[in-house]
Amino acid sequence: MEPLTPARCSINTATLGYKAPIATVIDQIARHGFGAISPWRREVEGGDVRTISRHIRDAGLAVSGYCRSSYMPAVSHDERLRIHEENLGALRDAGELRAACFVIVAGGLALGSRDIASARQQVLDGLAALLPEARDLGVALAIEPLHPMYAADRSCVNTIAQALAMCDQLDPSNQGGVGIAIDAYHTWWDPTLHQSIAHAGAARRISAFHICDWLNPTRDMLMDRGMMGDGVIDLRSMRESIERAGYRSFAEIEIFSDHWGSEDSARTLNICRARLQTAL
Amino acid sequence: MEPLTPARCSINTATLGYKAPIATVIDQIARHGFGAISPWRREVEGGDVRTISRHIRDAGLAVSGYCRSSYMPAVSHDERLRIHEENLGALRDAGELRAACFVIVAGGLALGSRDIASARQQVLDGLAALLPEARDLGVALAIEPLHPMYAADRSCVNTIAQALAMCDQLDPSNQGGVGIAIDAYHTWWDPTLHQSIAHAGAARRISAFHICDWLNPTRDMLMDRGMMGDGVIDLRSMRESIERAGYRSFAEIEIFSDHWGSEDSARTLNICRARLQTAL
Repeated sequence: MEPLTPARCSINTATLGYKAPIATVIDQIARHGFGAISPWRREVEGGDVRTISRHIRDAGLAVSGYCRSSYMPAVSHDERLRIHEENLGALRDAGELRAACFVIVAGGLALGSRDIASARQQVLDGLAALLPEARDLGVALAIEPLHPMYAADRSCVNTIAQALAMCDQLDPSNQGGVGIAIDAYHTWWDPTLHQSIAHAGAARRISAFHICDWLNPTRDMLMDRGMMGDGVIDLRSMRESIERAGYRSFAEIEIFSDHWGSEDSARTLNICRARLQTAL
Repeated sequence: MEPLTPARCSINTATLGYKAPIATVIDQIARHGFGAISPWRREVEGGDVRTISRHIRDAGLAVSGYCRSSYMPAVSHDERLRIHEENLGALRDAGELRAACFVIVAGGLALGSRDIASARQQVLDGLAALLPEARDLGVALAIEPLHPMYAADRSCVNTIAQALAMCDQLDPSNQGGVGIAIDAYHTWWDPTLHQSIAHAGAARRISAFHICDWLNPTRDMLMDRGMMGDGVIDLRSMRESIERAGYRSFAEIEIFSDHWGSEDSARTLNICRARLQTAL
């Protein structure tokens, strides 16, 4: 494989720990030669989305994805309606940002519930309600299967195969508007990983490819993800499968980590650049 | 479903935190009306296995399983041979204990490795080498798929479907000697859970059923498992699937928990009894 250049990579702003205003972060990412950014709603919703979008474009960056949906499973119908409106607003912001996709982190069980099948159905219903707008805007809903250790509290969508089956239910004739985000951290353990990636590619459903690493040992279930190369994921063979499956867009570096998030951002970005050569 | 009586349940001794000698633990479990015990090698290997076995029988308990294999993936051939000898010895002890199965916790990646496919192959090879002895002894090797969050450090076998595929490779004509241990904690999130249980039952591969609960939030990846009813797993529907799949043997209570392990054992056992009525 040819080397993965920074220009073919995106920086998910969570990696930098939200230490600086989004305007500063955009400039830092561009200055380090990355080709795209993936911002979070917390950085966008307080400001003027058009200004942010123009700033990103002026800096020469694409937007590989916009993070992320509100969790969809909820106890009451009213609550689900409120969540839908929230997600619709965020999806429109994704359109304004010209994001390649709106990342769907589906949500876990509704409060007090033990019914994961019902949570999964609610996610499907929530996505079906968003799909027409996603198509109008040209922003794919990118269902991100999360690691099974988040099934209770963050996402009841936990494997690539499951996310693909949801895509097929939502979009049986493959018109588009819905795909999946494949994150190395969440999926590396999957015994069917490489065939699932191939299936996703054959169905033209890969909307995003996220990278970081799984540290061994992992000390915290959320904030101890690793810099590429510091952990046990065979990122190179995963990238190979993703590219063989036809995905040619950005590899997005998304590292949730107390360590990296509090590090000097320029240093983090330089290390990310270096690791593209050695770990991918 | 009829209520799950203590007589149909086993206590995995990890639940009681190894606070007392195995002889004491056997008597406690029997006194509380449970039908079986699942001891650990750390409690058996220092003592006389025949004496322990007789004590268990005299107390009126069955042995639902013997915990557990040494991790199989390793860097060198010599190391793998040493592990095989260790596992063979433990398997023979399982026979001496008249355990229904020898629990296989396969192991994660070999030290320094990122090659999970190779780890999985080493597990398969390790099990193939144990299988003739398991058949001779009449003790099934019970491959336990562990939660994907343990893929790096404890087991590269992470789903029921994967474990069943391994059984099929090891025992294509279904002569027996190898099956799976289905643990609610490790598998509850699986989108194919109920159909995988049905497949396992149809293939007569269910060697054990382990129960505890998934706490939300979970504060530690190993030692924060919950008492049945304190978490989010729908244990009743899982038990229903397991029984519908033809499994009629013990439900084994295995709770890895700093909290329960340091609790007074009589109190823990009483709470386990009570929760069989309310959570299963």
